[in-house]
This record gives sequence, structure tokens and C-alpha cells, in this order.
Amino acid sequence: MNLTITDVRLTPILVADPPLLNTQGVHQPYTPRLIVEVVTADGITGVGETYGDTKYLELARPFAEKLIGRQVGDLNGLFVVAEEVAVDQSRVSGQVDVGGLRGVQTADKLRLSVVSGFEVACLDALGKALGLPVHTLLGGKVRDAVEYSAYLFYKWAGHPAGVAAEKDDWGAAVDPAGVVEQVRKFTERYGFTSFKLKGGVFPPDEEIAAVRALAEAFPGHPLRLDPNGAWSVEASLKVAQELGEVLEYLEDPTLGTAAMAEVAARTGVPLATNMCVTTFAEIKEAFTKDAVQVVLSDHHYWGGLRNTQQLAAICRTFGVGVSMHSNTHLGISLAAMTHVASTVPNLHHACDSHYPWQSEDVLTERLTFEDGKVVVSDAPGLGVEVDRERLAELHRRWLDDGGSLRDRDDAAAMRVADPGWVTPSVPRW
Amino acid sequence: MNLTITDVRLTPILVADPPLLNTQGVHQPYTPRLIVEVVTADGITGVGETYGDTKYLELARPFAEKLIGRQVGDLNGLFVVAEEVAVDQSRVSGQVDVGGLRGVQTADKLRLSVVSGFEVACLDALGKALGLPVHTLLGGKVRDAVEYSAYLFYKWAGHPAGVAAEKDDWGAAVDPAGVVEQVRKFTERYGFTSFKLKGGVFPPDEEIAAVRALAEAFPGHPLRLDPNGAWSVEASLKVAQELGEVLEYLEDPTLGTAAMAEVAARTGVPLATNMCVTTFAEIKEAFTKDAVQVVLSDHHYWGGLRNTQQLAAICRTFGVGVSMHSNTHLGISLAAMTHVASTVPNLHHACDSHYPWQSEDVLTERLTFEDGKVVVSDAPGLGVEVDRERLAELHRRWLDDGGSLRDRDDAAAMRVADPGWVTPSVPRW
Repeated sequence: MNLTITDVRLTPILVADPPLLNTQGVHQPYTPRLIVEVVTADGITGVGETYGDTKYLELARPFAEKLIGRQVGDLNGLFVVAEEVAVDQSRVSGQVDVGGLRGVQTADKLRLSVVSGFEVACLDALGKALGLPVHTLLGGKVRDAVEYSAYLFYKWAGHPAGVAAEKDDWGAAVDPAGVVEQVRKFTERYGFTSFKLKGGVFPPDEEIAAVRALAEAFPGHPLRLDPNGAWSVEASLKVAQELGEVLEYLEDPTLGTAAMAEVAARTGVPLATNMCVTTFAEIKEAFTKDAVQVVLSDHHYWGGLRNTQQLAAICRTFGVGVSMHSNTHLGISLAAMTHVASTVPNLHHACDSHYPWQSEDVLTERLTFEDGKVVVSDAPGLGVEVDRERLAELHRRWLDDGGSLRDRDDAAAMRVADPGWVTPSVPRW
Repeated sequence: MNLTITDVRLTPILVADPPLLNTQGVHQPYTPRLIVEVVTADGITGVGETYGDTKYLELARPFAEKLIGRQVGDLNGLFVVAEEVAVDQSRVSGQVDVGGLRGVQTADKLRLSVVSGFEVACLDALGKALGLPVHTLLGGKVRDAVEYSAYLFYKWAGHPAGVAAEKDDWGAAVDPAGVVEQVRKFTERYGFTSFKLKGGVFPPDEEIAAVRALAEAFPGHPLRLDPNGAWSVEASLKVAQELGEVLEYLEDPTLGTAAMAEVAARTGVPLATNMCVTTFAEIKEAFTKDAVQVVLSDHHYWGGLRNTQQLAAICRTFGVGVSMHSNTHLGISLAAMTHVASTVPNLHHACDSHYPWQSEDVLTERLTFEDGKVVVSDAPGLGVEVDRERLAELHRRWLDDGGSLRDRDDAAAMRVADPGWVTPSVPRW
């Protein structure tokens, strides 16, 4: 058995995305992802997936070159190698990024987001080589299926007229009735029982009305609302007060540790986050100030599956809940999330996943949700197989695009429909 | 490849221990350890080692029975199984234990101390089955050798007359000259460059003099002093002031988080611990209060090698140093410590090891220190082999003992030499 990495393939792609609304704008019709493939001397290929915007590709290419000749099982070494890759400082503001949706932007976080795609690919290859599922490489699953929530979005029926886009059959959802109808589709198609609404799109009162409509239509189901930091402290507290009885948690109502801590101190509604705490460096202050009660790990941000386990251990130690977040992703990342989530003992909330919104994938067979859960694969590696023709097609789309969609920009997409749209500054309300 | 556990063997043994002094008394001439062997359906045997006192054996036996039929790679499951084993509440005071040397005694910690022996055995078996070293199962080494410190003890030349015991050639060390001479032997034999003195034996002024003598004889070498919590806050501060310029850190000068926090707040000398923080449950308060600056992981306490990695991640996240502690142990545990230490990026202090004091071992070949370091094995599993005859001999000693040495009791050993000895209450000074 030769576990030396002899080849690494990077394939940027564009995948269809519906017109989902958030506080910054609307999803573009196609969104970039990067597919990572690591090949061993024995010809075993492992696959991973991460963010595909240009700033990630810029790092992934030199990083990939440095992996040739290394052992595929040398996962700790990935972080050492990543340190050797220079980050273009113009890419990292040290602040919450322009889009505002991925938390603070630092060089370390950019590196970790790139490492994560390679770590998953290495774990997949190692598992295939050893005949073991990824969850065993992570110490073994403690559950056989992982529960996900329905990720509700306000959305338009379609992308603006004249824009090249794939169609979707979800219809519009721009008011409480539309959101309730969306949940009906989600429960019929996937059996989800927890519901998260992406908010920050309409004034808080309208979103309160939507959550109330959900609580009425689906009594007893865990509900969450996530405005991506769009509210002031006072607005956050008002929403918490109005919805306190029906919310499982409120996600990132406001921006920054100080504001989150103030909200947390003044409400009994737990606060979850994938914006306030997205790096290990942010944990100490946030936990010391009790600013957050649940951390939603995006394994891409955090540097992969083993770092996500470490995050979970930290949360457990500090009495903070943990669950998982997801941003527009494909089946490789859903498989990766499912493997790591199956190994985390203190996972007490259904994980978020955009996957149902992604009609396109690079796998020969899509992952499926049953009763809102994904069954943990016991096949070697991640248990997924890449459809090479499909991958080539989606890569062709990326090549053909020439640049306009290669960097996700929800505000730019909104300006197509509303030329006067200015990227909102937060708090909006 | 069948990784099912089909047999588990538990072998309690007694191993020779020199008359090493600490604040509670003196080491008994023989000390108990438990050797754990896990056998897979394919006939592969993995070995582990942990504390061997009766209270650990009482838990290890029912725990071992529950492992039959489970997968050797199901490491997360070990903690789930451990929860199912009842702990005799009379064994766990919830306080620092009578001996005072192993920190707080709780049911969870007792369980974790038992799990650790099995976790190491499972990792060893899994590594042998897969042809991979344990460090690869832990994500891969980030260094090729692990540095250890010389673990200096005040000691007598021999155990009290009339007590059955093995002889040692280290001589007595009951004053500064004796300690300096001990270091000369340590450096000649093993090449150690960091020195830790187990204190709390003599009044602080005498131990200050010993450390000063070391600083003078071996200028520039990192020095540590560990009185096992024997001092008051004021005494601790006095020592810190007198030795501040030569100490790498002061280890457990005083007992409990509140007292440690007070000392830490009033001195610039870093405080290390393997008594104040020995469980995940103690971390939050200690870290929030900045009570400790370095946590010394005993992988037995903490539940094994993967938990030690989690502890290291927590320390890194909170800006707390991490290194490793060791209590009377054999080569299996030294190999285990070396594997996990090789994978921890933030290991900035030489680890402690009693191993040079243990003239007896159960291995066919002892591990060696060169230039104070143990080279990380790349052989499958831990890279050690059990000498079955030797194991049987040491088990025979345990069987023949009938009970008096089966539970370590340093105060009882001291009473043999000094019938009036009463287990000291702390702070002694």
C-alpha cells in the first residue's frame, strides 16, 4: 500500500443556484465551487469540495503543488503546509467580508477554507485505501443517521428576466403564506422536522409574522430565524421577545461579539452563530462573554472535519451547543458533514444544509434525505462517486463564464433586478 | 480484514519503584499498573497501559466484557460504553484524592482513566491491522522526536531496611548537592536538557536552594519546581519571587483554582498544572480565571490520546500552553505519549516522564532517550512488543502480594520509616 500523493486535480465549477434572498441581495444564478481530487501512488482518488471564488483558487493552486510526494494520511501536516502559502493581503480585510455572510475574513481563515477541501479529499482517499469509512478515520460514528433542518429562504419564482439561469419548481416565497408553502414542499420531499428561515430580507415585523405562521402551521417543530446580523441590539431583543416561545434559537441576529453578548444577556432565547464565531481565534472572547449559545460549524471555514471535532470538544467543554452550518454546497460536502456529524457526541440540533436547493451535483448518485436525515455511509471513504462527465460540464460552464460569476456577489445579482440596490450596511433595522 | 474485538486481556502487575519522595510520603517499593490487551478476530493484539489500583481494576473488568464484538476502530464508542459501567461511589469523593497527587476524583475521571488504557490498545491493534503507526491514526506527526525533561526527585538511597525492594543505583538526593548530582546522572544517561524537581518535600527555602544550585550548575537550562500543591498562596508567591528568573514554570504551587488564580494574578511566573485542571469539567473556570498558563496532560486522566489532542486544541484556542505529565508508568505509556505528543503542534515544553525511574518493563526492548528525546516510531501501531514472560512475572508479583501494595499509598510507605507520619494536609507551608 503506497499512500503517497502523486497527483492533485483542482476543478472549479459553476452550479445552478435559485434566486434565494438574503440581507445582502439575492443568489446569483450560478455559484462557484472548487472540486479537489487527491490521487495516491496506487491510483486511489479522494474527493473534496470547498468554496470556489477566485481568492480560494489563488491559494489552492500553490497549496496543491506542495502536496505532491506527501502522505495522504498526514492530515496535521496540511496545516503546516498551508502556513507556507502566501495570502494576498488585499483579499483579507480582517473584517467581516463585503458579502457579510461568511464572518470575519483573515488569512488564516482563507487558508483553512482551502485546507478543508484537501483534508476531506485525503480522508476519502485514505478511507478507500484502507477499506474504512471516513467516520471510522474520525474515531467512529456515535449515530447511524444525521438530522438536517429545512433551510427556508425568501425567494423569487425565478431569476430576473433575461438572465441565463436554470429553472426551479419551488415557486416564490415573499410572505408568510409563501414560506409556509415552502415548508410543505420541504416536508413532503425530504421529511424535515426542523425549520430555519433565512431572514434579514424584510423588516423584522414581516419576518416575525412568517415565523408565527410557521409555528401555527407546524406546531411543536423547532424553528430558527437567521437575519445574518441585519438587526440592531434593540431590534434583536424585540424579535426575541416576540418569538421567544417558538424559537429553538435565534441565529446571528446582530453583528459582532459585543452586540451578540448584549442581546444574549438580555434574552433567554439562545443565540446561534456562524458569523460571530467562525475561527478558533474568536472563541475565547465570545465564550468568555457568553455571547453565543450554539456554534454552527461550517467545516470549510474551520479547516475540515478534524478541526470541526475539535470545535465540538471546545463547545462541550464550555457548555456551548454545537451544530453545523452549510453554504451553497454539493453532495461531497454533504457527505463530509454527515460523516463528521455522526462522530460528534454533543450534536443536539439538526444541521443546516443548502443541498436541497442545489439541483445540480457532480456525483453519480445524489445523497438523499429520509425523515429529514441522511444515513451515515459505511462504504470506504466518503461513500460517494464523482460523475466525471457532469464534473466536466460544470467546469466548462466555469471556463465559459469568463469571470462575472466566478466570485459570488449577491448584491451584484440584486442590482440586475434593482439597479439602485446598494449593498446594505448593517444593522439594517 | 476483520476488526472485531474477540478477546480482551487484563493483567494487573506490580513494578519496582525507587524510594522517591513527595509531599504525601514516599513511593512504595512496588507500584500497580494495569496492562490491557485487545485482540481482534484476525488475531492481532493491541496493548495499552493505565493505573492499576483496585478502583481502576473494578471498572476495567466490566468495561472489558462490553467490548467483545465491537469494532476496534470505534474509539468514540468507548466513551459511550464507559457510561454504562457503574462506578462505586465510595471510590470517588469529588474532591482531590487522599494521595492528593492525581487531582480531583470523580466518576467520569475514573472512567476516563480506564478508557485510556483500552483506547491505546485499540489504536495499537488498529495500527497493526492497517500497517500504520499510531501517530498516523492521530492525523500524523508534526515532529520526528519528542523532547522529555529529567524528572528529579528527592530520594533516599534505598527503601527502609527490612522492606522487600529492588535496588537502584541513583543514590540519595536529600539536599541541593544530591539534586545536582542526580541531574548529572540524568544528563549522562539520557541527555535531558530540561529539569523538573518534584518538591513539596522540604520547607520551601530548602527547595529554593536546590533550584538555585541547579541554575548555577546548569545555567540556561529550563527549570521547573512542582510541590504538588503543598504551599499556601503566600508561600507560592515567595518562591515565585525568589526563583522567577530561573523558572520555566512553577507547577501546582498551591491547591485549587481560586488559590492558583490568586498566585497567577500576583506573579509573572507561569503556572503549570496536573492537579488543578485534570478534567474537561475543570477547564472553563480555570481558563476564565487565568488560573493556569500550562496544562500538563496525563493521557490516562484525560481519557486517551484523542482526548489529549482535544485538550491541546482547547489550550491553543485559549492561549494556554500544553505539555504532558506522567506518573509511574512503563514503556507502553511512554510510546503512547510519544505518538500523541508528536501530533500536537502547540507542544512548547519538554514532556515529563517517570520512565527512567522504572527499571522494570513489560517490553522486549525498552524505549530509549537520546539527547533527551524519544524518536517517534513509524512501525505499525505503537511500535512496541510485549515480553510475555516478563509480563507473567510481574503479574505473579501482583498475585503474590495479596493486597498491601495493590493500591498506591505513599503515606503508608512513609510510615514504615516514620511510624508517626500523618498524611500531611495542604498547604503544608
